[in-house]
Amino acid sequence: MNQFTPFILPEPTLRRLPWYLAYVDILRNKGVRHVSSTRISKALSVDASQIAKDLSFLGVKGRTRIGYEVEDLCHALSDFLGFSRRHNAYVVGCGSLGKALLRDSGLSNYGLEITAGFDVNPDVIGRGDLGVPIRHIDRIYDEMACNPADIAILAVPPEVAQESADIAVGAGVKAIWNFTPYRVKVAEGVVMANTSIYAHLALIFTRLRSLQ
Amino acid sequence: MNQFTPFILPEPTLRRLPWYLAYVDILRNKGVRHVSSTRISKALSVDASQIAKDLSFLGVKGRTRIGYEVEDLCHALSDFLGFSRRHNAYVVGCGSLGKALLRDSGLSNYGLEITAGFDVNPDVIGRGDLGVPIRHIDRIYDEMACNPADIAILAVPPEVAQESADIAVGAGVKAIWNFTPYRVKVAEGVVMANTSIYAHLALIFTRLRSLQ
Repeated sequence: MNQFTPFILPEPTLRRLPWYLAYVDILRNKGVRHVSSTRISKALSVDASQIAKDLSFLGVKGRTRIGYEVEDLCHALSDFLGFSRRHNAYVVGCGSLGKALLRDSGLSNYGLEITAGFDVNPDVIGRGDLGVPIRHIDRIYDEMACNPADIAILAVPPEVAQESADIAVGAGVKAIWNFTPYRVKVAEGVVMANTSIYAHLALIFTRLRSLQ
Repeated sequence: MNQFTPFILPEPTLRRLPWYLAYVDILRNKGVRHVSSTRISKALSVDASQIAKDLSFLGVKGRTRIGYEVEDLCHALSDFLGFSRRHNAYVVGCGSLGKALLRDSGLSNYGLEITAGFDVNPDVIGRGDLGVPIRHIDRIYDEMACNPADIAILAVPPEVAQESADIAVGAGVKAIWNFTPYRVKVAEGVVMANTSIYAHLALIFTRLRSLQ
């Protein structure tokens, strides 16, 4: 098994890997050539043995008294996480949040290329100022035939979240990135990720209240 | 203890409450007046007894054979989660993601009012087209004196994430909402929420790869 062999990594490990990448990328930009798991551990407050274990999943091993090669570690993490490969995505729902995601060019640095947006609102369909074409949701099948995408970024109102996800999956996307507060269900085999902006807001608001 | 008494709710409960709100809000918009925990359970695939337990934290109780009053449940959830109160926030870092957050007017529907943005880039400071004033980060102390905010939304490059969080906390914010992939540390008593966009991307990419 090499580092590109697909296998299901535990989610807690997957959550930590981007932290390691962000940190070692900073070191690389500073010209640092080697880093020990102890140093990463101190910076990120993650147990050093946990770090070594997480990185061993990638087939990356540090050397005694030298540690990890920073450059290699950056590449291994970035490749493993999929950030160095291009993945096409559609934004489904081009309201306020959808438009914001369309405009966030930073996502492409992480391998996410938004190639089209879909909506039902005639005011947004056909708009030329959002960087990609915005089409009626009924056109998603045609778009898939010409410019396929594996990922649908769901930014519709909650009441049409399930229906919109079903349409996107029906058209052929293999993953739903759900930004709505609605708990969308998908068939087994479809990848589902929830970015619960509202849950995080609720966390902040309730924790702030408990400070008062 | 009434429903507004501050106390620390378990995080898994906090994560589920916005799902309930999204669902019962849809019912309310459809004119539905009562809902049972069984119906919520079927829609969201959460155990009905878990739902009853979660809602009891809010002091909300359903009636036998009738269930919960939809209108009351919406209000109770929205109030409890802090969505019906205004919370001021600053965006720290007005690059691509920061600008996207500034433009996402949907956040104000959930009680988050962004009142200013901060950056160090002269190209963005003073811009008048982002809905709120964009100031140099050094001005955050002055801004806090005139238009205070409890929350700093962190959208800076990872290499200045810790430093920027320290400045915001030094100026008086009580919560950091971290959108950077860097694992920012804050003093005890400061609320910290991470929205790990990049971790979610990594989850999608690696899961997609495992399907191939």
